[in-house]
Amino acid sequence: MAITRRRLLTDLGAVGGASAVFLAMEAMGMARQTPAGAEHFSLPPGSGNGKRVVILGAGIAGLVAAYELQRAGYAVSILEARDRVGGRVWTVRGGDAVAQIGRPLQRAEFDKGLYFNAGAARIPSTHRLILDYARRLNVPLEVMVNSNRGAGWDFGGKVVREGRMLRDMDGRIGELLAKAIDGRALDQAMPKGELEAFRQFLAFYAGLDRQGRYTPDGRSGYDVEPGGYAREGKPHPAMALNQLMPKSIAPFGSAAMPFLFEHVFDMAAPMLQPVGGMDRIAEALHAEVRPLVRFATPVTAIRRAGERVRIEHRGGTTEADYCVCTLPANLLSRIPSDFSPPKKAALQGIDYLRSVKVAFEAPRFWETDDYLYGGLAWTDRLNENLIYPSDNFHAEKGVLVAAYVAGWTNPGNPDRFANLSNAERLRISAESVEALHPGKSRLLGKGVSVGWGMVPWSEGVGAIGPNWDATGRTARYAELLKPEGPITFAGEHLSYVGLWQEGSALSAHEALKLIQAMAAEKAGAAQAA
Amino acid sequence: MAITRRRLLTDLGAVGGASAVFLAMEAMGMARQTPAGAEHFSLPPGSGNGKRVVILGAGIAGLVAAYELQRAGYAVSILEARDRVGGRVWTVRGGDAVAQIGRPLQRAEFDKGLYFNAGAARIPSTHRLILDYARRLNVPLEVMVNSNRGAGWDFGGKVVREGRMLRDMDGRIGELLAKAIDGRALDQAMPKGELEAFRQFLAFYAGLDRQGRYTPDGRSGYDVEPGGYAREGKPHPAMALNQLMPKSIAPFGSAAMPFLFEHVFDMAAPMLQPVGGMDRIAEALHAEVRPLVRFATPVTAIRRAGERVRIEHRGGTTEADYCVCTLPANLLSRIPSDFSPPKKAALQGIDYLRSVKVAFEAPRFWETDDYLYGGLAWTDRLNENLIYPSDNFHAEKGVLVAAYVAGWTNPGNPDRFANLSNAERLRISAESVEALHPGKSRLLGKGVSVGWGMVPWSEGVGAIGPNWDATGRTARYAELLKPEGPITFAGEHLSYVGLWQEGSALSAHEALKLIQAMAAEKAGAAQAA
Repeated sequence: MAITRRRLLTDLGAVGGASAVFLAMEAMGMARQTPAGAEHFSLPPGSGNGKRVVILGAGIAGLVAAYELQRAGYAVSILEARDRVGGRVWTVRGGDAVAQIGRPLQRAEFDKGLYFNAGAARIPSTHRLILDYARRLNVPLEVMVNSNRGAGWDFGGKVVREGRMLRDMDGRIGELLAKAIDGRALDQAMPKGELEAFRQFLAFYAGLDRQGRYTPDGRSGYDVEPGGYAREGKPHPAMALNQLMPKSIAPFGSAAMPFLFEHVFDMAAPMLQPVGGMDRIAEALHAEVRPLVRFATPVTAIRRAGERVRIEHRGGTTEADYCVCTLPANLLSRIPSDFSPPKKAALQGIDYLRSVKVAFEAPRFWETDDYLYGGLAWTDRLNENLIYPSDNFHAEKGVLVAAYVAGWTNPGNPDRFANLSNAERLRISAESVEALHPGKSRLLGKGVSVGWGMVPWSEGVGAIGPNWDATGRTARYAELLKPEGPITFAGEHLSYVGLWQEGSALSAHEALKLIQAMAAEKAGAAQAA
Repeated sequence: MAITRRRLLTDLGAVGGASAVFLAMEAMGMARQTPAGAEHFSLPPGSGNGKRVVILGAGIAGLVAAYELQRAGYAVSILEARDRVGGRVWTVRGGDAVAQIGRPLQRAEFDKGLYFNAGAARIPSTHRLILDYARRLNVPLEVMVNSNRGAGWDFGGKVVREGRMLRDMDGRIGELLAKAIDGRALDQAMPKGELEAFRQFLAFYAGLDRQGRYTPDGRSGYDVEPGGYAREGKPHPAMALNQLMPKSIAPFGSAAMPFLFEHVFDMAAPMLQPVGGMDRIAEALHAEVRPLVRFATPVTAIRRAGERVRIEHRGGTTEADYCVCTLPANLLSRIPSDFSPPKKAALQGIDYLRSVKVAFEAPRFWETDDYLYGGLAWTDRLNENLIYPSDNFHAEKGVLVAAYVAGWTNPGNPDRFANLSNAERLRISAESVEALHPGKSRLLGKGVSVGWGMVPWSEGVGAIGPNWDATGRTARYAELLKPEGPITFAGEHLSYVGLWQEGSALSAHEALKLIQAMAAEKAGAAQAA
């Protein structure tokens, strides 16, 4: 029986490579599935048996791979180009240098205890794998407020609070639908009784009066808020649909995105963040594999040496039985390698999102004056988003993210904003803060900007673009997943949870399964021989 | 000029009482307005000049009144029936006794560090006054997660996640509206170009395909979540409108409320809570006025003695120049007093909400197994709501509120649930937990229930009901606001922010303004004499 199974695996391996082996193993119940990231995948203890694995990159994918491999008894080394772990998970603190290619070095000057999540800044509560690592490694989490009904939307030069925009849009939609129902336009759409019940629900849901008119009852906010004694409160009147409507409707265009923001599965409440900075999870993984990481060791070539792998790097060469290559595709495409022509072709021309963030330190006027406890403001200015801090409420100072430019409101914004001088980025961001918080931009100080397209060893935050969309990957994707002999690949781009730590971790697990399968295959072959 | 103004005030005072005096002062810019709770109202320093004020009740209204009065130089005493401050702000911890009238005493056994907010449990970020007190008194705040897209809605015996219900309802509404627009039913509703633009926006907003059909793209969740490598993810299919629709549409009936929950102004994100329990703000106020509070001192009669007030209580009598009476109207109506007949009449028959909560201690299975970090589950069972803890994520244990019965899903529920035995309340709540988290109810322990209608010195959580609605108070309200000579009134019921700490604090400020006006009037009269 054991022989038969091993024979089958070996045969499959010869035909279809390690992926086919893994699929077969999975079908036979020998490998554990990774359903939805929830399972606590781990390699069988001792299965590494001292075999050497070299990991390229100490971002989340590389750290997760290293953590799991060394627990399973592999001899692991990680080559990391920078002098820190985390990759695109980068928390900037006072004293940190912020390098951008071709730009003067910035030095963050934030007070002790303050930080700026220049890269990853949120963890959806559906990202179970990364949450599992946080729990297992005792990284305290807190809520990251991703939506704030009190925050401003500054579009067309007019600031309106989010709650008013959202509720009025729902109200106007409900009102139009009620009008259509009342005009008998939907009599054929569903049975009469159902339609009547729905019409009743709609009045309740959208805030319609008996005539079917949207009549905000305070749900959209108040001109005068209700108070003590006789102060009854005066609800905002309803805004007209043409005041609410985004001026451009192109997908993700103009003001359309903020209406949809929470409809995005990965942006829905609640979101989480590690207490003290997003890099705390990467650092906790790092703490588990600390001696294995070689910093300041960029990879210069990826070679195969018989059945093994040989990595050339600034510090010399490293040979290993297996490799987990977590380098982003944009950088990997430029590194000399023995990859197959199809792999080299597949790596070419993948576009990376070049988002930009700006942060200032300031007294927390958004709390003291505007009662904004976390959340995002939105604007059609170049800076696109403000992000108010979700931690340390009522502290004296905080870090305000005054620009988060990812193409939310205009796909051209990231490059346009990135191409501005560092000083201009700060100026435009401060202007936006001034529009949302009149008189307050003078309180902003210690500005820092990070244009990810210019960040060495990243040059972008993740694969995105017309040839790389979320629902239908192009043909290149299957090729990118394939190992090159003993070399496996991981990173957010090798997942359907792209641009998230979760995707990096999930892809790392998949790479580990391939290594596990290959190791099992070799062991089987050796035993059979 | 000073004389004229004083004369005017005196004249007004004679005609209309202190309220008229205050309104006149306000009109002349002598009193500071309380706009929307944002202003940091305070009495003029030293204005109390040693005059005595007795405060009835050490809930938020009483504590706020005491804090402000003593800062202004008044000689304050607070009479409190219980042995704790906070009133309906009640955080139950291990060792605390839970008394209900006519029921056996319960003793909470929660582990150290765990707590149950049996009463107030949320602070909207629009409640600026209570947030100001938290800030001023250095009470650390954290986010209270009030909505969780991953939480279950258990209606009609079927559990569906909130995100799916909400997004599918939006999608179906958008789909119907698009059908009406495409069928030309709304051609008259707005200009053609505007309608076309809106139709485009609608497709984007509601997730409609080119044929106008709602086609969830993962926004409502996934049958198979996207993962690493080739796991592309399989979105939930759309639910039919008749699956989504609440079975009863009566306002706040059946499953309608959860759809609307976040549309309620006071329930919108973000919400906050003090770190360590809701009573921390009351306790911080208490710390500022500690020597002034007499515990276990129920009021037995409220008398006037000339221009002064004489309070009879278990400990004897207390005379004072002024009184701030913060007792809830339901209890106050039963206390002998020298109140005017109209006041006595106005106090009669005010209905109080008799909500019930149940809490259990348990290992945090809702986090480890279901990745629920705070938020509410909803059900058409008697327990109505579950509330998952928003604090100490990933700790070993937590307190799960397994029933929050306030009539959210059926106005008859609170009394129905309250009338069950303590054991039955726990049993029904545990059954609901089991439906939402199969196999997990066996982990629930140390159950405690609090039926507020039976809580001594409260007998309800706030004024509510047909003769006391939020938008149009009945004639009795104006009468209730009027001082009785030197006796002023405060409490959540004397605000348009009823059932909230904010309303209590705002009403207290109004009562203080009356006292301030009366004191100024007397001083003026004395000086003129």
